[in-house]
Amino acid sequence: MTVSTTPVAIVGAGPAGLMLSHLLARRGVESVAIDTRTRQEIETTHRAGILEADSARMLLDGVSDRILRDGYEHEGVELRLHGQGHRIDFQELVGASVWLYPQTDVFIDLADARERDGGDVRFGVTEVEVDGVETDSPTVRFTDAGGERHELRATYVVGADGSRSQCRRLVPEARRRIYGKEYPFAWFGILCEAPMSAPELIYAQSGRGFALISQRTDSVQRMYLQCEPDEDVHAWSEDQIWSELQARVAGDGFELETGPIFERARLNFRSFVQEPMSHGRLVLAGDAAHTVPPTGAKGLNLALADVKVLADVLEQALDTQDVEVLETYGPRALARVWRSQNFSYWMTQMLHTPPGADAFDVRRQMGELETVTSTQQGRAYVAECYTGWPNHPIGG
Amino acid sequence: MTVSTTPVAIVGAGPAGLMLSHLLARRGVESVAIDTRTRQEIETTHRAGILEADSARMLLDGVSDRILRDGYEHEGVELRLHGQGHRIDFQELVGASVWLYPQTDVFIDLADARERDGGDVRFGVTEVEVDGVETDSPTVRFTDAGGERHELRATYVVGADGSRSQCRRLVPEARRRIYGKEYPFAWFGILCEAPMSAPELIYAQSGRGFALISQRTDSVQRMYLQCEPDEDVHAWSEDQIWSELQARVAGDGFELETGPIFERARLNFRSFVQEPMSHGRLVLAGDAAHTVPPTGAKGLNLALADVKVLADVLEQALDTQDVEVLETYGPRALARVWRSQNFSYWMTQMLHTPPGADAFDVRRQMGELETVTSTQQGRAYVAECYTGWPNHPIGG
Repeated sequence: MTVSTTPVAIVGAGPAGLMLSHLLARRGVESVAIDTRTRQEIETTHRAGILEADSARMLLDGVSDRILRDGYEHEGVELRLHGQGHRIDFQELVGASVWLYPQTDVFIDLADARERDGGDVRFGVTEVEVDGVETDSPTVRFTDAGGERHELRATYVVGADGSRSQCRRLVPEARRRIYGKEYPFAWFGILCEAPMSAPELIYAQSGRGFALISQRTDSVQRMYLQCEPDEDVHAWSEDQIWSELQARVAGDGFELETGPIFERARLNFRSFVQEPMSHGRLVLAGDAAHTVPPTGAKGLNLALADVKVLADVLEQALDTQDVEVLETYGPRALARVWRSQNFSYWMTQMLHTPPGADAFDVRRQMGELETVTSTQQGRAYVAECYTGWPNHPIGG
Repeated sequence: MTVSTTPVAIVGAGPAGLMLSHLLARRGVESVAIDTRTRQEIETTHRAGILEADSARMLLDGVSDRILRDGYEHEGVELRLHGQGHRIDFQELVGASVWLYPQTDVFIDLADARERDGGDVRFGVTEVEVDGVETDSPTVRFTDAGGERHELRATYVVGADGSRSQCRRLVPEARRRIYGKEYPFAWFGILCEAPMSAPELIYAQSGRGFALISQRTDSVQRMYLQCEPDEDVHAWSEDQIWSELQARVAGDGFELETGPIFERARLNFRSFVQEPMSHGRLVLAGDAAHTVPPTGAKGLNLALADVKVLADVLEQALDTQDVEVLETYGPRALARVWRSQNFSYWMTQMLHTPPGADAFDVRRQMGELETVTSTQQGRAYVAECYTGWPNHPIGG
C-alpha cells in the first residue's frame, strides 16, 4: 500500500473531474483524479455534445483551442413543427452561439492538457473505496492499473463519478434528498455515415413524435427518434429508421441525407437531483449530483458550471482551512442546476407527445411551440436558456 | 311577433358583443345585440380586469377615454416568491403597459357608447331562440323587456353569450371538438375597503399556496387566495382571511393594508376551447368559444381580440356575400386563443402548488420562477405574454 497526501482527491476523471483538476492546477492547487475506466475506453465511447459559449470559453482558457478547428459554431437552432421550420437565431436574439463539439473530444482535450501540464490522473483503477468524509482525514483507496494498492489522504474529496456515482451514497440517507422524474418515452439514437442534412440542430415535433437531427462531422451524423422506453432498436431495419426519421421532419421539401447506420442505441433518461451537494469533506459535481433529459443539451454544460464554482470554493476552503466554506458550494451551484432542470424538463415536455396525452394538452403544446417560435420574446427566452445564462453571477 | 332584418345579430351584449357592435358600426355595418341580463344587472356585477395595451387602445378608439381618468396604468407586476419580491418591468422590458380597469367599467363604457351612437342593443330579453344557422336565413327570436316577441332575420349570427353559451351548442356534436382542463384548486376572492397595499399587482407563490394582491380603486381592493375547489368561503372569519393573505405575501417587511371585507366568492375555473369557431352562418366570440384560468388576466383581452378579427371577417363576408369567408375567422382567432391558453395554463401551473405535487415538481417550479424573475429573457418573455402580443399579424 502506497500512502500519499493530496489537497483534493477527485473520484471520476470524466470532463467534470478533469476540468476541476485543470482549474485547481491553474490556482496552484494540486489534486489527484482517478477513474475506473481506461482512457481508451472513454475516448472511444461516442458521446454527443453541445457546448454553451461559457463552456467553450473554459476549454479555450488553457485547455485547448482544438474546438475552434474541429468544432462547429452554431449560431442558431431550428424548431420544426409539423413540417414547418422556425429558426431560433441565437446571435441575433442574445448575441451568443453554442458549439457542436462532442463530449468525447472535450474529454480528449482535457486528458491531453492534464498530461501536458503534469496533472496526476490515474485511469483504469479498481476497488475504489472512499472513507471518512465526515472526519478531518478522508481517504480514497484504489488499486492502480498495474495492480498496486494506494491510499490517498485528502483534505477534500470530490465525487465526480457520474450518474452511477458511488460517492453520492456517502451522504447519509437521513440527510440526502432525492428529486427525480421518469419520462414515458426514450430516444432511439443512431450514428451514420452521411453528409450533414442541415448546418444546425433540428428539433422536430410532429404528429408522429419527436426527432432530433444532429451532426457530428462532415461525414458522420447523429440522429434521434422518440421511442418507447423499452423499444428494441435492433428490431428496426435501416429503411424503417430512415423512413420514420424522414416522416418526422418532412415538409418544405426537406430531405434527410442518409447513409449506413453504424451504431444504434436506446437512450433512457430521467431528471435527477441529489441534495445537498456537499457533506463533511465530500462534494459532488456533475452527473454524480444531477442528471437531465438530453433535450436541452445541458448535462455537460452543467457539470462544467459546477466545477467552475467548485474550484473557487475549494481554493477558499484550503486557504482558510475552514471546512464550512464547502457548504457555500451547493447553494451557489444549485441555482443553475434547477434552472437547467427546469429548462430540460420544459424542452422535453414541449417537444414530445407523451402516450395518452389529452387533446387539450396536445393543442396547448402547439400553442406553446407557436409562442416560442413566433414571438420575439419567446424566441429570445429559448435562445438565452439554450446558449446558457452568464456563469456568474446567477440569481439575484 | 315583430319581424325585422339585420346583417348581424349578436347574442350576448357583454364586452365582446358590444365591442363587436361598435366596431361594425364604425365600418357602416348595422347589428342588433341582445342580452338576457338587464343593463343594471351587468353594471352592478363586480368583474376584475387587466387590459392589455391593445385592448385599452380599442376603448380609446371611439368608445371612451374614461380609462385614462379612472383606470390605472401598470408599468409592471410583481412576482413574489417565498417572500421576496421580483418586479417584472413591462415598460423597460417590452415597452408596454397594462391597465387596471374593471370589466364592469369596460361594459359601462361600451353600453354608453352604443347608446350615444344609436346602436341597437336590447337588454333583459327572454326566451332567446337561434335557428337556421346552417341555412341562408338564420333567425334569432326573443321576447323583449316589455314582453313583445321579435324575430330577427340575420345574415350572420354571432354567439357572444359567455361561458354558458347556448349558441355554441348549435355546432353539431359530430363537428365540434371540445378541449378542456380542470384544476385541482380554486380562488377565494374578496373585495374590501382599504387603501392599496401596492401600486401594481402582486402574484405570490409561497409554501402556503398562491395569493394575488390586486387593486380596484384608491379605497377598494381585490385579493385572492388559492383554495380548495369546494372551499366554503363563508366559514372563514375576516381575521383568518387576512392572516392567511398576509402569511402568503410576508417578507421584506411587506404588510397588507386591511379593511372591512364586503364581498367574498369562490372562483372555480377551467381551461376550455370549442372548435371550430364558425359553423354555417354562426360565429362564436369570447367566452362562448373559450375560457382561461384567471391567472394570466387574458379572458377579456382574448374576447376583444376575437371581435377585432371578427369585425374584419364579417365586413368582408357581407361585402362579398360569401359565407365561406366566415371560415377564415377561426384559424385567425385561434392562433391567439391557443397562445393565451398556454400562457394562462403556464402561469397557473407555475404559481400554484397542486395538492400532491411531488418533490421534483415543487423544486423545478421554483427553478422556473427563478428563471423568469432573474434572467433578462425570462422576464421579457413574461412581460410580452402578459402585456399581449401585437394584435396583427399573429403567427408566421
